[in-house]
Amino acid sequence: MTLWDKYPVIKEEMDAFEGTLRRFLSSKNELIGSAISTMVSAGGKRLRPALTIASAHFGEYNMDEIMRIASSIEILHMATLIHDDIIDEAKTRRSMETMHQKYGVNVAIFAGDYLFSTSFSILSVKEDVDTLVHIASIIKSVCEGEIEQYCSRFSKDMSVYKYLRRIRSKTALLFMLSCELGANISHCSRDVTNSLKRFGMFLGMAFQIKDDILDYIGDETKIGKPVGNDLKDGIYTLPLIYAMEKDNNGKLKDLLYNQPYEIEKIIELVIKYGGIKYAEDLMDKYSKKAKEELNKLPHNEFRDFLFELTDDLVNREN
Amino acid sequence: MTLWDKYPVIKEEMDAFEGTLRRFLSSKNELIGSAISTMVSAGGKRLRPALTIASAHFGEYNMDEIMRIASSIEILHMATLIHDDIIDEAKTRRSMETMHQKYGVNVAIFAGDYLFSTSFSILSVKEDVDTLVHIASIIKSVCEGEIEQYCSRFSKDMSVYKYLRRIRSKTALLFMLSCELGANISHCSRDVTNSLKRFGMFLGMAFQIKDDILDYIGDETKIGKPVGNDLKDGIYTLPLIYAMEKDNNGKLKDLLYNQPYEIEKIIELVIKYGGIKYAEDLMDKYSKKAKEELNKLPHNEFRDFLFELTDDLVNREN
Repeated sequence: MTLWDKYPVIKEEMDAFEGTLRRFLSSKNELIGSAISTMVSAGGKRLRPALTIASAHFGEYNMDEIMRIASSIEILHMATLIHDDIIDEAKTRRSMETMHQKYGVNVAIFAGDYLFSTSFSILSVKEDVDTLVHIASIIKSVCEGEIEQYCSRFSKDMSVYKYLRRIRSKTALLFMLSCELGANISHCSRDVTNSLKRFGMFLGMAFQIKDDILDYIGDETKIGKPVGNDLKDGIYTLPLIYAMEKDNNGKLKDLLYNQPYEIEKIIELVIKYGGIKYAEDLMDKYSKKAKEELNKLPHNEFRDFLFELTDDLVNREN
Repeated sequence: MTLWDKYPVIKEEMDAFEGTLRRFLSSKNELIGSAISTMVSAGGKRLRPALTIASAHFGEYNMDEIMRIASSIEILHMATLIHDDIIDEAKTRRSMETMHQKYGVNVAIFAGDYLFSTSFSILSVKEDVDTLVHIASIIKSVCEGEIEQYCSRFSKDMSVYKYLRRIRSKTALLFMLSCELGANISHCSRDVTNSLKRFGMFLGMAFQIKDDILDYIGDETKIGKPVGNDLKDGIYTLPLIYAMEKDNNGKLKDLLYNQPYEIEKIIELVIKYGGIKYAEDLMDKYSKKAKEELNKLPHNEFRDFLFELTDDLVNREN
């Protein structure tokens, strides 16, 4: 059972995609091959490849090309996940052991590097110079976003603006790129490409805000990790940032100066000060903007699919 | 005082190179900018860019192009160094604190990724598809070599063959690539390009064997780290591998089964069983092969420089 079973329009291609991904990820090295293959089997939402595939259907669809580019994006994403998990000291992802937990930090660092190189090597074969430069600059942004997040841990002067800039770098740009590359390969018109790009960007923003909301009010059995996971690492996200701004009597700040955090009390205050409500409203705004872009696209079953996907992602429980 | 002061033929370009490198490595993010700038200032041998520059002088030399490609190779090398140092838990490099030691593992992981992306983004601008695919495949080999090394730690059945295959992956291929890219950009003839590539490969092998010899008999004040540094991490290199093969009465193996290692005793036996001598002989063979390739090149001051460099590298004390 995958996420895509409920979307017949894309299900078959998503199944084919898994095969392509595996073919691109074979390695001469036994350990790296086994580590990566475990990660592929553990699955993942495969959202980015789905966006590439759906976007490509707005132009002249070429399955081989699309599978190749969708794989390179998912591989890039996997590389960042491996390195993220090391940094966050995450023990599990999707209720499975993370790579560094199972194989050690050292294998995980190089496995990530290996995936970066693999992705570039797949992309280099056919993409033009401008595209490659663009992709590389987006990965640089992703790294900058992650580093900024790490450096701002426990910082009491995080602002909504800084938060939005960060999630744009670390999440939304890659969503945008996934749509853009699909559109470009299929030679979509400039208008269609631009709408798809903006759609991807807005969806990415909504997606990350939802992720951050789930860290406060998610169901632990569903999200596959404890609530307050980011919070305890000092990663302050939108619900908390807003709540801190409303915290006139300093109750919340007091809690944030005491280590280890009393997670339950903090979450209670974040909810009380309207942090969740504010984050949900902003998420809804982004999801509305995403849909406005979809409305500019020619109507077809893939547009319907992207509408449905947007709703499902902001309503998701994990 | 840099390594290049003694080579007037290349000194000026190596100085110019430092400037280009810095220009390519500016970052919007303050911390990453500062971490990387510290690393650039700490210096390094800059061997790989020097090989690119010298190789390019055998064809139609284009300074801007060469500086660009030389930077991308050095940046790639810096990325692998940062990740290597994390894995080796190295506290110092060239007597300066390593990046993860100064800024934390987390910053260092993403700084490495950032440098990988920067390198690709520089390369993507002008290189053709075949070159990019070739470069990406070499980085994959470097990662595979590093992972293989990590997985073989403390393994008593390391062989000379496995060792040579490993150092080819993790070191010599990038030396080869440095020469190859210089030759390609300058449109050298196929023969000249092939000789330069083989020269780079053989020099890289000799260079790494020397590095591994220094881990046994180097002067700690000169190499900027304690002797037996790799050894204590369970990285068995040529001197030890050979000595283990000659260790008929099992004295050396006994020492290797006892943790923590008695480094001095092990080094003593490695020397006694001829491990250093064997490694030096093999290094000399590679350096001789490297020079044979140089002899096939047209005679000019850069060929003389590469001869001298080869001798200096195998005779170096750090």
